[in-house]
This record gives sequence, C-alpha cells and structure tokens, in this order.
Amino acid sequence: MRTSIATVSLSGTLTEKLTAAARAGFDGVEIFENDLLVGPLTPREIRARCADLGLTVDLYQPMRDIEAVPAELFARNLRRARHKFGLMRELGADTVLVCSSVDPEAVDDDALAAAHLRELADLAQDFGIRVAYEALAWGRHVSTYDHAWRIVEAAGHPALGTCLDSFHILSRGSDPKGIEDIPGEKIFFLQLADAPLPAMDVLQWSRHHRCFPGQGGFDVAGLVRHVLRTGYAGPLSLEVFNDVVRQAGAAPTAVDARRSLLALQEEVRPAEAKPPSAPVTAAPVTSAPVTATPLTVIPAPVVPTGFAFAELVTADAEPLTGLLAALGFARTARHRSKPVDLWQQGEARILVNTGAVVRRDGAQLAAVGLESPDPGGAAARAEALLAPVLPRRRAPEDAPLDAVAAPDGTELFFCAAGRDARHTGWRADFEDVGQPPAAPGVHRIDHLALTQPWHHFDEAVLFHRSVLGLDAEDSVDVADPYGLQRSRAVSNPDGTVRIALTVGAAPTDDTVHAQHIAFATDDVIAAARRFRDAGAPLLPVPANYYDDLAARYEFADGELETYRELGILYDRDEAGGSLRHCYTRTVGRVFFELLQRDGGHRGYGARNAPVRLAAQHAVRTSGALGGG
Amino acid sequence: MRTSIATVSLSGTLTEKLTAAARAGFDGVEIFENDLLVGPLTPREIRARCADLGLTVDLYQPMRDIEAVPAELFARNLRRARHKFGLMRELGADTVLVCSSVDPEAVDDDALAAAHLRELADLAQDFGIRVAYEALAWGRHVSTYDHAWRIVEAAGHPALGTCLDSFHILSRGSDPKGIEDIPGEKIFFLQLADAPLPAMDVLQWSRHHRCFPGQGGFDVAGLVRHVLRTGYAGPLSLEVFNDVVRQAGAAPTAVDARRSLLALQEEVRPAEAKPPSAPVTAAPVTSAPVTATPLTVIPAPVVPTGFAFAELVTADAEPLTGLLAALGFARTARHRSKPVDLWQQGEARILVNTGAVVRRDGAQLAAVGLESPDPGGAAARAEALLAPVLPRRRAPEDAPLDAVAAPDGTELFFCAAGRDARHTGWRADFEDVGQPPAAPGVHRIDHLALTQPWHHFDEAVLFHRSVLGLDAEDSVDVADPYGLQRSRAVSNPDGTVRIALTVGAAPTDDTVHAQHIAFATDDVIAAARRFRDAGAPLLPVPANYYDDLAARYEFADGELETYRELGILYDRDEAGGSLRHCYTRTVGRVFFELLQRDGGHRGYGARNAPVRLAAQHAVRTSGALGGG
Repeated sequence: MRTSIATVSLSGTLTEKLTAAARAGFDGVEIFENDLLVGPLTPREIRARCADLGLTVDLYQPMRDIEAVPAELFARNLRRARHKFGLMRELGADTVLVCSSVDPEAVDDDALAAAHLRELADLAQDFGIRVAYEALAWGRHVSTYDHAWRIVEAAGHPALGTCLDSFHILSRGSDPKGIEDIPGEKIFFLQLADAPLPAMDVLQWSRHHRCFPGQGGFDVAGLVRHVLRTGYAGPLSLEVFNDVVRQAGAAPTAVDARRSLLALQEEVRPAEAKPPSAPVTAAPVTSAPVTATPLTVIPAPVVPTGFAFAELVTADAEPLTGLLAALGFARTARHRSKPVDLWQQGEARILVNTGAVVRRDGAQLAAVGLESPDPGGAAARAEALLAPVLPRRRAPEDAPLDAVAAPDGTELFFCAAGRDARHTGWRADFEDVGQPPAAPGVHRIDHLALTQPWHHFDEAVLFHRSVLGLDAEDSVDVADPYGLQRSRAVSNPDGTVRIALTVGAAPTDDTVHAQHIAFATDDVIAAARRFRDAGAPLLPVPANYYDDLAARYEFADGELETYRELGILYDRDEAGGSLRHCYTRTVGRVFFELLQRDGGHRGYGARNAPVRLAAQHAVRTSGALGGG
Repeated sequence: MRTSIATVSLSGTLTEKLTAAARAGFDGVEIFENDLLVGPLTPREIRARCADLGLTVDLYQPMRDIEAVPAELFARNLRRARHKFGLMRELGADTVLVCSSVDPEAVDDDALAAAHLRELADLAQDFGIRVAYEALAWGRHVSTYDHAWRIVEAAGHPALGTCLDSFHILSRGSDPKGIEDIPGEKIFFLQLADAPLPAMDVLQWSRHHRCFPGQGGFDVAGLVRHVLRTGYAGPLSLEVFNDVVRQAGAAPTAVDARRSLLALQEEVRPAEAKPPSAPVTAAPVTSAPVTATPLTVIPAPVVPTGFAFAELVTADAEPLTGLLAALGFARTARHRSKPVDLWQQGEARILVNTGAVVRRDGAQLAAVGLESPDPGGAAARAEALLAPVLPRRRAPEDAPLDAVAAPDGTELFFCAAGRDARHTGWRADFEDVGQPPAAPGVHRIDHLALTQPWHHFDEAVLFHRSVLGLDAEDSVDVADPYGLQRSRAVSNPDGTVRIALTVGAAPTDDTVHAQHIAFATDDVIAAARRFRDAGAPLLPVPANYYDDLAARYEFADGELETYRELGILYDRDEAGGSLRHCYTRTVGRVFFELLQRDGGHRGYGARNAPVRLAAQHAVRTSGALGGG
C-alpha cells in the first residue's frame, strides 16, 4: 500500500520534514497547516519541492470548527474554507481533513451538521477537492467514527467522505468492526497512530505527576482545613514524586517544597482562625485534649503595581542601545558610580549594565525593578517564603534596595512607587544626562518573558504567585519547530505587571534561552515604522501567515497589507479585543517586542508564538538580521 | 505547624536529601525505605545524622501488602514487620506507614483486615511503634480513606491509626469533608501532595503520547484489517505526535515511522490474504470496483538462536582483559589482520578490539554477533525494514558477514550457527592462540544491557521486535538516585538471546551511559569467589540491603552471610525461581555481571537495580574500585 506521513509527525522545518519523509521512502505527506504558515515557502514552492522529492500531497489538514454553528458563523467559516481551497489547489492537495467541531457555539444537530458539510463539499467540488470528515475523540458533539459516518451518509455528497484515525477510534474504546459497514470509497483517508494504554492510570499519575501543594489542581488547603478541624496535631508532610523532582538538585527542591507548605498554611489560615472560645474540632469520640497547632504566619502579600525598570547586562552595549535608540528610547541618566545607563521612554525604563560579569552568550536580562507600595513589606514576605535575599546595597553610596533572587537567578528589586521615588529610591543613584522623548511611542513595559531552567518551571510559578502575590493563568503549550514550549503567565490584577514564564520541552532544547521585553504602545504601526525607518529590521514574518489571517478575519482596506509590510502579528480574542505585535532581532539572549492591546485583549499572542519561533530559527540559520 | 518531607521527594543520596531538607528548614523527614536500603549508612548512623541536622524521623515508609491475606502469608508478613520494627527503633522512628494491600492474594474481608492490623499493632506496640494505615488509591480492596478508617476503627487498637494522603484522597474524587468524622488523635499522619488535574485527558493523551504503530498498546493492525475489508484504496498515513518526536531528528524518526508501517502491513497480511475469488469487501452500497491494494511484503523473520559474540572496543585493553581474566576467560584466538582478540569461556565469547576509533569515555560495546539459522535471510529482512546495512566485509580477506546497525549504533552481525560456523563464519578470520578453560565457570552470555539514546527508546524496541523477531516484555521503571530509568527487555522464545534496552529519564542523565554484559553461571558463589580471589573487587552492596533480604525471605544457614560477604544480589519470583547476581567495576562504559538463574527465573533483577545503581554512584563519587 502507499504510505504517507503527516508533517506534524516529524521535527524541524517543513523542508527538513519533507526531505526526511522522502529519504525514508514515504510515497506522500499530509501537510499540517501550521507547518505551512510558519515557513517561507509559498504553497506552489512546497508543491514543487514535494514533486522533486517524489512525494504526493495526500492531505491538507486540519480544517477546524466548520459545522453545526449559527448561520452567520457558518458563512464566515465558508469564507475561510474558500481561501484554504484556493491554497490547496496551489499546493496540489485534493483532500482536506475537516475534524468535528469543538466550537462552543456548535449545536448538537446532526441534520444541520450534514447540511453544512454538504454545502462545504459543494464548494470544495468547485475546486476539485474532496472533504474528509473525521470525529475528534474530544469533539463537542461528534466524537465517534460511526457518528461522523452517519452525518457523512446523511449529507450524501460525492465530494464528502470520512477520515478514520486509529487514535480517535481506539482511544474512545469504539469497536472498529463497525468500520466494515462503511463503503470503502467513502473512506477518503486513513490516519494511523498507536498509543500506550493508560493502564493503572492513578498509579502512573501518582508516580510521575505529583507536585507540591499549589503547583497542581487539587484543593489541598481545603483538605488540610478538614484535617485540622479534627484536632490533628502531627506534621504537614510532603510526599511528592515526579520525573523532574527525581532529577533536580535536592537543595532547591527542598526550598521549593517548604515554600509550598508555608504558602499552604497561609491559605489554610482563614478557616482555622476561629474564635479561641470555640475549639476547632469535630471529633466526637475522643476524650484527649485537642492540641491547637499554630500555623506559621507569613507577612501579607504586597502586590507590585508596575515595572520600575528592567536591567540588561552585556559586555558590549552597542547592539542593545542601537535597538533601544531605534525603538525611540533616549539615554536619560547614568549611575553615579557604576557603568550603568538608564534608557527611558514614557514610563519604560531599561538599565544597560556593562559592568557585570556576563556569560559568553551575551546580553541578558539580569534584574527587574518592581514598583511596590511597601518595598520593605514585600521583601519581608519574600524572605519569610525562603527567597534568597540579596545584599541591601550594592555599593556604600547606593540607596538601600530590597531585593531577592527568583528561581531562575533574576534579581527582583522592590522599589518605592510614586513621586518620591525619584529622590529616595533607586533613581537617586542616577544623575541625569538627557531628557526622555517628549512624545513617546512606547509608554511602559507591557510584560517580560523569562525562560526558566528545565527543572524549575513549577517552582517559578509558585514563587511568583506566593512571593510576589501575582495570579497565574493556565499553562499553554507553544509549538516550536523543534519541540513544545510550555508557558504560563503571572500578572497583577490590573495587568500592569505581567511576566510570561516559559520552559522548553527538554533540557537540550536550546531554542528557549531567549528572554524578551515587550513594550506597550498605542500605535504599533507608527512605532514599527519609526523603528524600521531608523534602519533597524523587524523580524520577518512569512507571507503564508498573512494569507491565513486573511482567511480567518476580515480587515479594513489596506490594513492587512500594512501588517504584512511591517511584519506585525495579529490576534483577536473572543470578545473582539485585538493584539498587534512585532519583534526586533535578538541580541545575546534578549529581544524586544512592540505591542498594542485594544478592546481589553489580555493575552500574549500564544497563537502567533510558533510563527515567531520559526522566524527566529530561520534568522539564526540564515544569519539574516545580524542576529546574535 | 511542624513540617516534614519524605526523602523520596528529593533527588540524590540519602545524606544529600537530609542535608537539603534541614537547610530548607524542615522539622522532620519521612524515611523512604529504599533510600535506606541502597545507602551505606546504618539505621543508627542515619538517626545520628538526622539529630545533627535537627531533623526528627517522623515516619518510616512504606510497609506494603500486610493485611487480609491467607494465614501462612500473614505469618511471613508479621516476621517481616518484626524485622522492620527493630530497624525503626535503631532509626528512632516511632510511626510506620502501612498502605492498603495490592497483593493478589489479599481478600475482600474488612473483618480479617482489621484483625490482621490489630495483631500488627500489638506487635508494634511492643516496640513502642504506632501503625498508620493508609488507603492507596489503587489498593486492591481498600482504596478510599473512609474505608481505611472504618477498618482502623473496627480494629480498635491504641497503636493503630490512619494516615491521610491528599493525593490518594483527591485523586479518587473522595469528599474530604468526611475527614472531620475521624478523631484527630486517630489521624497518625498527614501526607500532602498536589497534582495537575488530567483535564481533557484524551486530548493530552493524543497530543503528548501518540506513537507509531507497534510502539503502543492499540490493536492498530486489527483496525486496518477492518478498513481494508471495505475496499479502502487510499494510503496508510501516520499522524503521530509526542514530546519526543517533536524534538528528535526528522530523518531517523521518518525511518522509524516507515518501519512501523512495514511491520504493520506484515501483521495485517494474514487476514488480507483471502482467496482472490472472494473479494475482500463488505461494502454493501457501493457499485465502484474494489481496488485490491497490495500490502508490501517483507521477508519472514529469522529469529536469532544465541549470542555468537560481543565486541568491545577500547584504546587500552588492559583494564578490560584484566576483568575478563579474573572472570575466568582466556585469550583463545586473534584476528588474522586486525588488532582484535577473542576471549572465551564456555560459549561466552568476547572480542576485544583496540583498533577502532573510540570515544574519549573509553571502552564500549560496539558490536554483537547473533547466531542465526539463516544469516542471509535475517539480513534481507533487516534491509527490507530499513536497517542500515553495513559493508559485508570489513577487509578483503575477512569472511563476508551480514551486518546491520541498530538505532543506538551497535553493529549487529548475523552469524551462521552450528558446527560449520567455526570454519566458514566469523571465527574463520581468527587464528587460535590458546585454549578456553576446561572447566568454565561461565557458560554463555545471559543477556546484554544496552543504553539507548534519549530519543530512540521506542524506536529501539520496535527495531528489535520487528527486525530481529524478538519478543518485548513490559516496560519497567527503575529508580536511580538521580532519576527514573525505563527498561524493556527483548528476547527470543527460549531465552538464549536477551537484551535489556534502557533509557534514562532525561538527556542530561549521565547515569545511564553504561552498558553491560551478563554472563550465565551455574554457581555464582564459586564464580564470585574466583573473581575476588583473582584480586578483582566486586561492586560493594550496602549491609542494609541484606537486612531487608533477611526480613523478606528465609535462607539456609550461612546463605545470606555468603551473599553479604561477596556482594551477591538476590531475587525470587512468584513461582519460587531465584536469581543471584553480582557486578564488576565499570571500565569506560562497560561492566560485567555474573548471574545464576534457578527454577526458571526469567527476570533481570529489576528490584535490585536501584541498589546496583546507587552502589555504582557511590563508587564513582568515592573513586573506590578504581572505577572508570
């Protein structure tokens, strides 16, 4: 039989994948849409490359969330499909995979699903394309292969068939014998994968995925409250094992572990703190005296209210300051005693330090100043939660500063906020040498993205939550060409402090050592133009990405062309809020982002991150942009 | 509240763990039994170390599979418990964790469980020890905390209480409110862990754990047979993604992938090969002609029947040949044209090659000769399954040999078996220089243990199964002090070819680069004595290990003392078969094992592997044994 492989099954760039598939003797490939979007080859060029390699393009995939939705949404979906069918013709692909919808707006209506798929197939037929409809195991209403087939059969269109996937069928425990009831010519495609059976599931969960309280999803504090109400007087003891803890250094793990218990006791406290006159026990049968076991008290959280500064260290300031100047920053002050310059624009302040010991991989983000309503209180809490406290002053003449080290080694300074800060805080160590731009294009630091060492991701999230009092969002997976990154954002309630914590899929993953600073602007287009006009190149974004945007959203005349021209990425949230952002080249480990939020968009462009990562890989490989 | 941590929650040796816990400010520790067993400190020394560090020993854990078993087994369990209670007194631990039984012989009888636990508590009380009974989430009959408490309550013994573990309670979805019905003084211990919720479980399974057909647990071939019966004429297409494939090199992954489809087609074939007169379709509604799609044919498997040789390459033969001589091997032949010596004893043959290019980390196992009833057929199958074929002769005067490369780079030679082989096969390239020992202590190679590169474990298992026709056993996890190793054995039906494939928990795990050759002996005690008397040290095994053996099994007078004296490890299987084995020091990446199987024991001593790994770490750290 002919053999194919989905490009998503191989690592690397699309051309690496195609070459590997051909060398291994595959007859064809499924082109995974994201592999096309993030790469520089046009669909026609990909078609030619496949032909050269003797590969057919057997499938284009996936087309998601098409069917059984409200009419207006379906019209938008058809518009998107038309774009993709055009692309498929250029690509030379005659079959598209449509997987059953996971859209929250999809309704449980097989007749409507069949009608929509029939209409889609009609459109596809105009392009000479066949639609293969597949039940995702986690489809919202259609999750089994026989259900998908019933809908295809009901639609009764020659350009509509089904796609079978062994994973989706067998993971649901469906009986595959029923496949024989489907006419072979209506099975348009067969995708194969195996998977280890999750036998002894709880045992595996326990053995490989336990974590310290506050790092998972259990209500451990709730459980502890119940235990304390019994009068339990023994210790709180951690029994945790997972693949990371088994390998990580014992000393930092022990600190992380005890921090989790301190934070847990703080969480438990409100329930425990009942009036002493009412002993907190429900134990009915015991006559033993209830020992009131005091919970350890931690100073209350002092949530930071903004970024005072970010400090970059480098042996050679020129490449960094060149970028900062092109971004519109001006050198406004210098440290009284050390080789540290302050670059400023609006409320965004970057310290460039050429006096520190720097690793050979060049510039890096070494410290962050956090504006705090109570720097001393923040430092006291951090110390109580076992954060390493840094010396209060770095030189005798410096202003005393409260600072601790984060798990990744980044120094966190707690800085007084408000007008007085200029004369009493860190800023007093600097003497003015210039003025910030009168009409800043950048207002402030929107967020920092800090990559975490392999073993310290959960620790870092717990640290930022407990020590700094920030809230953590859900973890997201981000596809890099050579692995999955995991990313989790922490922020204060009004979003003036945001930090994206990121970790690569493996310790050998050298794609994730970059750190970046995102600057907030009210006009990303003007800011990007100004940057480019200063002679500094923005990260180039593939044309395929903009073709996909065109399929996905409707834009005002010329809007998309502007994004394409400048390399601006775009994201829209469910409430219609938008995010527009673009990137500079990387210097050492550091790059910058210009970012505009509208309509309350709170995200970080996770959807665009694979495009950015692939583009950064391409730059590294080609040496373009003079990148580090 | 007082805080404790289980030593299993930290990485490293027991003393590393204790130090880290104390430095982080914990008040006490749970001593995990295995951490004690694999280390050199006696229980009294551990107690003193804890006291020095200001740590209390709050719990000893776990005691497994005690209750609700047949009387004779319970008597053995009490004997084991008595040993451990004695140990706990030396350790200064006054509470022991007993977790609910997973023993297949355990019966579902709460009254019997309560009676047994009462008896155990009676015994414990004599030692001043309290028993904390905990429901494992995967306990055979007792898996919820309220069930465990009912049994404890029914037993009604002052030295018996319950242990609560947040993981076991919350992972089962139990309502923790019921905890308040337990008197606080009967909660002897509280263990805390969090865990990520397995939300969208199938999606995570799909995204992170798909693998190529034959590498998981699905009956993919069965599904494909159903599909082919419909007359499906499209390609077999792989859609697989997991964290490894996303990072591994595209080229080897593509080869692994296509090999899986070739092996799959072979597996599917028997069902497909119906008489041509009966078209294999059940499609009732189609009028289209059924295209019979031929499956690719692979030459039939030729299962190897034994090890012809193992070849070690090294720049310096002395350390290796010193070990071989002490093991009783003699140099019996040398290659006619290359710097390769044959060392032999019984049917065990080791080639020592000093002519190859060797990595700086010294001696390694580079090639394996497999006896084959049809070397040409074996090579043809290997080539059809995409194994890289090596040049048939390495020098013009050498006998032609069929050889391929395994995924880890090991060269596999297919060698003719039987009497003729000596004159026509690989052996003909060697000229005799001596005689093998007349009364060999070692008969043959029992097994090889080959460590696999990080990304190639599943590929290696599939390779050995499909290319060599070996059967794979289940995967087992083996605890190393610094991580979990995963190990999976492949073997031929009569066990004359066995290879243990092993991989570390992370690419940075440098504990797993060792390879070893296990030699079968009928008298491991004599073989070990001879080795030691030749002045070569065996790997030292901690005394705590033998104390545990004494608790676990009854031995003949003096038997255990002999094992202890020599450093022989012991394992017994459920059918009463035994395995006794010991290890040499490591040279470069290679060490040797002496191994005696009795009563049909087929295992590899996985239970002892953590002891061996910890001992090897200790040797490396201390520099004892002159190890590599």
